[in-house]
Amino acid sequence: MDKSPFTRIEKGGVTSPKGFTAGATYAGLKKAGQDKLDLTLLYSERPCAAAGVFTQSKTCSPSVTLSRQRIARRAAQAIVVNSGCANACVGPQGLTDAKDTTILAAKKLGLSEEDVLIGSTGMIGVELPMALIRSGMQKISLTATAGPSFAKAIMTTDSHPKEQALKFQMGGKEITVGAACKGVGMIHPDMATLLCFITTDAAVEPGFLQAALKNAIDKSLNMVSVDGDTSTNDTAIILANGAAGNRPIKAGTKEAALFQQALIEVAVPLAKMVARDGEGATKLMEVTVEGAASAADARLAARTIASSPLVKAAVHGGDPNWGRIMMALGRSGAAVTESKLSLYISEICVFDKGVPIAFFKEAAVNSMKESSVAILAKLGLGSHSATAWGCDLTEEYVRFNTEYST
Amino acid sequence: MDKSPFTRIEKGGVTSPKGFTAGATYAGLKKAGQDKLDLTLLYSERPCAAAGVFTQSKTCSPSVTLSRQRIARRAAQAIVVNSGCANACVGPQGLTDAKDTTILAAKKLGLSEEDVLIGSTGMIGVELPMALIRSGMQKISLTATAGPSFAKAIMTTDSHPKEQALKFQMGGKEITVGAACKGVGMIHPDMATLLCFITTDAAVEPGFLQAALKNAIDKSLNMVSVDGDTSTNDTAIILANGAAGNRPIKAGTKEAALFQQALIEVAVPLAKMVARDGEGATKLMEVTVEGAASAADARLAARTIASSPLVKAAVHGGDPNWGRIMMALGRSGAAVTESKLSLYISEICVFDKGVPIAFFKEAAVNSMKESSVAILAKLGLGSHSATAWGCDLTEEYVRFNTEYST
Repeated sequence: MDKSPFTRIEKGGVTSPKGFTAGATYAGLKKAGQDKLDLTLLYSERPCAAAGVFTQSKTCSPSVTLSRQRIARRAAQAIVVNSGCANACVGPQGLTDAKDTTILAAKKLGLSEEDVLIGSTGMIGVELPMALIRSGMQKISLTATAGPSFAKAIMTTDSHPKEQALKFQMGGKEITVGAACKGVGMIHPDMATLLCFITTDAAVEPGFLQAALKNAIDKSLNMVSVDGDTSTNDTAIILANGAAGNRPIKAGTKEAALFQQALIEVAVPLAKMVARDGEGATKLMEVTVEGAASAADARLAARTIASSPLVKAAVHGGDPNWGRIMMALGRSGAAVTESKLSLYISEICVFDKGVPIAFFKEAAVNSMKESSVAILAKLGLGSHSATAWGCDLTEEYVRFNTEYST
Repeated sequence: MDKSPFTRIEKGGVTSPKGFTAGATYAGLKKAGQDKLDLTLLYSERPCAAAGVFTQSKTCSPSVTLSRQRIARRAAQAIVVNSGCANACVGPQGLTDAKDTTILAAKKLGLSEEDVLIGSTGMIGVELPMALIRSGMQKISLTATAGPSFAKAIMTTDSHPKEQALKFQMGGKEITVGAACKGVGMIHPDMATLLCFITTDAAVEPGFLQAALKNAIDKSLNMVSVDGDTSTNDTAIILANGAAGNRPIKAGTKEAALFQQALIEVAVPLAKMVARDGEGATKLMEVTVEGAASAADARLAARTIASSPLVKAAVHGGDPNWGRIMMALGRSGAAVTESKLSLYISEICVFDKGVPIAFFKEAAVNSMKESSVAILAKLGLGSHSATAWGCDLTEEYVRFNTEYST
């Protein structure tokens, strides 16, 4: 196996790349007793190339609308994020509040408001408490070691922060990529994930940066499903500030391929962390589909299996009830020919080219007691493959979401 | 209000129309301790016009494949149904067993095997125990009062049988329509429902019969979602034997409109019964979307809300967390303009043309304690509407499906 060009940075995150600082505070948007950070800033000392992918929801948050508009310039220098309030479905006030929040951040940082992006997550249908945001903003101080605080401040129902960072060499320069991400309910992203922020000190040509981000998210966070519900606020943003001193990375080059791979290497572990931390989840489910007739079919089949409530419940119970996997494949819309299809649960073949296998059930049950369960479907129709990540469906998920607002 | 032309028949079902008989037995396909009928026959004394709609699953049961083939002749005279075994995903043996089952039924009834249709429901991935089917078939005796036994024998995880019947006058003749249906997991039908059998003594032109069945199912059972999962075995069949003595009903006539309405009047209550009896469910959820830009949008929006796990969990908890309804609308794919949209929960307006309403939360909470919860979304974009039915998501659903096969 080739040695990986990438070195993981232990406890690294959005402030690992050169020239990025962050800060966070408790402004009072979350309930007392919950995690005590809910307003945070991410800042680059230099102007950045910027790219983003966002929810396809038609009731998206004005925070998304504003960031989508501003990122069209392919440039930005800071991001302000609040948790506890999604700033969604509140009428025209939502866009006013989103703008005002970026103005407060811009004044504090000495930037033009156009250079500040915004992300919001939390309860839908309540207005941003602007007085709290205003006083909270004043309390934030920026440091180059506050990546973990940023990661903590963007959380809502997450049980722990989700960060990644790695470094690699490119043309004699050391490049670092860092990221923070949060889940973990309403997770079935469509063109984006809930909130994911990636920083890098690489210099990157903005058009390529957008394409590389889209491709990395499509192979990672867009392949996660916790509950099949898509948020109003999904946002993934990357800022590239060029502090590493490399020549700007252009599409189609060897450097572009390396940078693309670095983004995927950062995003895939985050995707698995989101799935494993799904509301109420006790297990990670990794679904791989091979031999699909098209790339779209492979993605569709893998995501449909990973999001089927009946498959998720079977994984929770450690029940190798593979008929449910067949059912999900059958309804996915992907081309499936039963006589060419084989199925594996944790590497145990349960269905071979159209015929059920008398597998040793106890072995399958035992393998499903592990904290990760692997499902593999070989469609035998082509050369395309995809992997999706999900989690088990638990009584705790229902209990949690039954009690959320009352 | 116009007086309805239809009279409900108390405790009516598939043997209410003239000339239909049924019979059922316990053949041993279900586990001991479960409901003790699992093999059943429905027979018409005269040849029938027949129509059917079936699952769109690409891993459908050979029982579906066989019925779909045979119903292309638009004629049939009997249906054999087994519960406890789906006869799905078992390789080539599945079609052999489905055919053999209809041959056994045909011999018993003195029919050609081509005139016998088949439905199967239960565990996926295990073969039909043909020795049990063979001996069970001999034990069945047919009577004109066995509709309730038929309805009981097709059940799997249903808590009670689901039947409907009504009669009406047409050209001096009394026409009766009866039906039996079962759910209640893997319920998100695509072009059909799990198992639904409708009988009528009307004479109906076969082409119109197919169109009328399709239309009635699209407005009823195809608008039910329990868990978003689509079965491999969904089947809805109608047999029309002409025993009422009416002139055959042709498309485009006044009689056709009346007959169409009769089918809808039979199918909608069954749809509600399936939703309310959803696995683990404690409440019926009725979602109506009005003012959609197209009929497809109305259906899509209503079904997406009714099948959202987060909406279903909120309904279970009696939590008027309407942001989740907005989220589901936003991701549904239907055209939605937030500023034109209004939302009602149990007739309480919570969101009015783009602006949240300071509704009395206690009243909404109380209204959601009822056994039926109504959600109404007025999109304000056009004149199309649709209603979908679902149920709440409960810990019991998870518990039940975690323990299903082990």
